[in-house]
Parts: sequence; structure tokens; C-alpha cells
Amino acid sequence: MFVAEIHVMPLKELLDPQGKAVENGLHNLGFKTDKVRIGKRITMEIEANNLEEAKNIANEACKKLLHNPVMESFEFEVKEV
Amino acid sequence: MFVAEIHVMPLKELLDPQGKAVENGLHNLGFKTDKVRIGKRITMEIEANNLEEAKNIANEACKKLLHNPVMESFEFEVKEV
Repeated sequence: MFVAEIHVMPLKELLDPQGKAVENGLHNLGFKTDKVRIGKRITMEIEANNLEEAKNIANEACKKLLHNPVMESFEFEVKEV
Repeated sequence: MFVAEIHVMPLKELLDPQGKAVENGLHNLGFKTDKVRIGKRITMEIEANNLEEAKNIANEACKKLLHNPVMESFEFEVKEV
């Protein structure tokens, strides 16, 4: 069995309103932070025969369902467990 | 300057409705996946004098604003850049 960890983040070129809101909140609390960006972290188990197949499944899942190519980029890591 | 990567995930004991919905979506598309869980990935720059201080800031930010202790757990990593 394989475990995938997928990160879906707003594209660097785009504003990230959620990140901006959190950044303002952090500043109001006195934190010295900058460039806050908020995306998704998705973990899942994948049934596959080998690592290569598991990576392909993770990649396909990202492309078909998990990320919105207009606004987000994704990266993932797959490990055997 | 330091960069923090923060993961905020739904507690293991709790149902994750968003993850469940995505899991159903993946099954409908024919993917063999299980235990899909969806949380947040937050990246930010932190101004601090040393790594210890930067880690404290990240920890405080998680506790005060970024995670909801009733429903979520957090973990983070801080690196100097």
C-alpha cells in the first residue's frame, strides 16, 4: 500500500485572499510575518502494484479532481508503507 | 529570515466531511484510494533573530490563530533562508 501527500497551493502569480486575511490577522496580533499563503494538504492511501503506478494515480487524481489549474499548482510525494 | 511550513489537519478521531466528499469523487472517477483527509498547508516568512525564536513565533501563530484546537492538530517546520 502507498500513502500520498499532496500539496495544492494558489499559483504564485495570483493574489491569495485567504492568505492575505490571515496575514492581517497575524499582524493585528503582533506577529512579524510576511507572504502568508494558504493551500490544501491532502493525504490518502493508494492501492497500487508498485510505486510508479501509485505516483501515476496520484498525478491523475490531482489533474482530474484535486487541483484547479486556473488558480492552483500541485506537488505530491508518494511513499510505500 | 525564516520560512515556516505549517500543516493543519483535522483530528484523526474526527470525521473529515471534505475528505469524504473528495474520496467519493475519486471513487466515482475509478481511483482506488482510501482514507482521504484534507487539511491546510500554510507557508509564511517570519522575521526573527534566530531559529529558536522563529519556531516560537510559528508555534504561537498556530495556537492563537491558525488552528482550531477543537477540530484540528498542527505541525510545522521552520527553515532559515
